[in-house]
Amino acid sequence: MSLEGRNIAILIAPRGTEEPEFTEPKEAVAKAGATVTVIGLEDGEAETVTGDLDPAGRYPVDRTIGGASAADFDGLIIPGGCVGADKLRASGDVIAFVHDFFAQGKPVGVICHGPWTLVEADVVKGRTLTSYPTVRKDIENAGGRWVDEECVCDQGLVTSRTPKDLPAFCSKIVEEFEEGRHPAQARSA
Amino acid sequence: MSLEGRNIAILIAPRGTEEPEFTEPKEAVAKAGATVTVIGLEDGEAETVTGDLDPAGRYPVDRTIGGASAADFDGLIIPGGCVGADKLRASGDVIAFVHDFFAQGKPVGVICHGPWTLVEADVVKGRTLTSYPTVRKDIENAGGRWVDEECVCDQGLVTSRTPKDLPAFCSKIVEEFEEGRHPAQARSA
Repeated sequence: MSLEGRNIAILIAPRGTEEPEFTEPKEAVAKAGATVTVIGLEDGEAETVTGDLDPAGRYPVDRTIGGASAADFDGLIIPGGCVGADKLRASGDVIAFVHDFFAQGKPVGVICHGPWTLVEADVVKGRTLTSYPTVRKDIENAGGRWVDEECVCDQGLVTSRTPKDLPAFCSKIVEEFEEGRHPAQARSA
Repeated sequence: MSLEGRNIAILIAPRGTEEPEFTEPKEAVAKAGATVTVIGLEDGEAETVTGDLDPAGRYPVDRTIGGASAADFDGLIIPGGCVGADKLRASGDVIAFVHDFFAQGKPVGVICHGPWTLVEADVVKGRTLTSYPTVRKDIENAGGRWVDEECVCDQGLVTSRTPKDLPAFCSKIVEEFEEGRHPAQARSA
């Protein structure tokens, strides 16, 4: 499989994004040939964590969300981390950006607490997905169908539960990003 | 006002409960004369944070949730902290405990990300409340009416948004705990 020529965006919060849910999907799509752009809320470096609370790494932000457009990308990755996901959903620019990927029928991979941004963007209704267990109720109340599987793929929407699911998640997002647009992805936007 | 003879429970997560949202309400009800019991998920000490991520204090757990019953208390306080609130909602014992306070018409004070436990316990429908802004959507999707005020009191349910609201929150929970049972509190249980 090859993602040569594809532009993939990955979101990161200023603090609190879960380290391996950021690094591993990023590496997987880069290894497949994609150009990956790290999109943050602020310029400079973002600080990741492990286990939701423990400081992990520091990563440069390539582009701030204010200057980013879904039209420039072929796919989107949204990592978890409880605080990181909470900070991402708090940004109206992030929510508009996420919504646009759905409206444009582009594949999106979301893991752990990441689906809170989907709930906030109102793109969950009628979709089948998984998440960290605590997000289940919020997904169901938003009209989504929650299932307990390591990786769920619903017409361009790829979701997983925790860092343990990363091998399956990384493999599936590369596959979906290679397939390209999924017109049915737009049905919940 | 006096809370002499009243037993008040306050929840704390093993890690990630927001420091001042734990300490200030606890001190306010104790100062008014209440006996306060710190209820945790595990024996030993719990670690609080400030700003969702930075380590703050360590506090002994008085009783674990497995051995706690709402019948033993006259009121409940649920602090926030993004990770702490997420860990509390993950516990079925915590959710049953929270639900029982509503079923028994007892006053409950909840701040910041704390209302996630109310969403999880299905006691939000038809109630008016506030929270940290990121929890708004989850409350509304659960059937609650969200308002942006420093302190909201809906027949025994007291809610506030952030640590800045603590003076109003602490004053109001003491008042509600003194009033005692609010039969209308049970209407959403």
